[in-house]
Amino acid sequence: MDQERLTRQLRFLAEVDRLKQVLRRTRVIGESRLENSAEHSWHLAVMAGVLAEHAPGELDLRRTLEMLLVHDVVEIDAGDTFAFDRAANRDKEERERQAAERLFGLLPPDQAEWARGLWDEFEAMETLESRFANAMDRLGALLLNVRNGGGTWKEHAISRARILERMEPIREGAPGLWPWVLQAVDEAMGPGGEGG
Amino acid sequence: MDQERLTRQLRFLAEVDRLKQVLRRTRVIGESRLENSAEHSWHLAVMAGVLAEHAPGELDLRRTLEMLLVHDVVEIDAGDTFAFDRAANRDKEERERQAAERLFGLLPPDQAEWARGLWDEFEAMETLESRFANAMDRLGALLLNVRNGGGTWKEHAISRARILERMEPIREGAPGLWPWVLQAVDEAMGPGGEGG
Repeated sequence: MDQERLTRQLRFLAEVDRLKQVLRRTRVIGESRLENSAEHSWHLAVMAGVLAEHAPGELDLRRTLEMLLVHDVVEIDAGDTFAFDRAANRDKEERERQAAERLFGLLPPDQAEWARGLWDEFEAMETLESRFANAMDRLGALLLNVRNGGGTWKEHAISRARILERMEPIREGAPGLWPWVLQAVDEAMGPGGEGG
Repeated sequence: MDQERLTRQLRFLAEVDRLKQVLRRTRVIGESRLENSAEHSWHLAVMAGVLAEHAPGELDLRRTLEMLLVHDVVEIDAGDTFAFDRAANRDKEERERQAAERLFGLLPPDQAEWARGLWDEFEAMETLESRFANAMDRLGALLLNVRNGGGTWKEHAISRARILERMEPIREGAPGLWPWVLQAVDEAMGPGGEGG
């Protein structure tokens, strides 16, 4: 047993506990409280397990799950950036890059590289797994807002067009779900446009 | 696309959102609020990814992650049963069995069988993967309570002996971590016994 290695692993695992304190802009179904990024990550991983058959190819599910488990860890330092806040999204990349350096850097070097590789892959959206993982990320927000009758989309007066633009990765990453997405957004927001 | 199948999958995924409302008896590190079972499940899955090398054999990590993702879903109906509450643990098995029937039964039949199989395997603790997953489950509570200076163990006046009895699956499922467990419990509770 390499004590230094174990100490680094446990320090990382204690540090990522803070993801439970990062609040998103969606509310838990039927609840007033906002969802946090840790429970959100869990929900996406369950979604990936259940919906894997809707990927447009044979998915490496282990890699997809690993990616979803760490994809939001950078928010511990960088915060959750609301998808529809254009100003905040301008410096998002740089903030998250620095967070990835520090947080994944807590791990032993080989594992830091592994975690960073998962996060980079998720962000680049080039592989089948990362496209599907991003589709799950969008679907997570969609499912909560739809079940909350429009939820935080209505609260922030987001238009149907912007919602569908945001959901676009589902069309690529899990194309079989797209007809349901269109229908669900229409039902939640009204087919006209701005919703509630 | 089989609409009935997709409808069942989405219904299950919306239903399991309620795991975010099930509170455990541990507190998030440095926070007064109790941890919920969804964010706990996420944390355990990250732990499994980082600590897999401490399993006493070559782990099927995909299966381990899947197991950890669904292992607490039954608590949506059955509630979280405090590990140190002997009375509540008497009917835990029956309550959880009924919950598994209903909740996994929301899925299409083949997936209901898959999820039920994961949960049964976790509970039986007979495979390498389920022993390691149970070790992570214990380690999750340990890490939070140790980082909270004894945390809810002290609040409920749990003795060192009962804590170590509860942590026993770590000795089997991730034996390399056991020396650290003994040391961490001593540091949090005092080597004498009752803590506080």
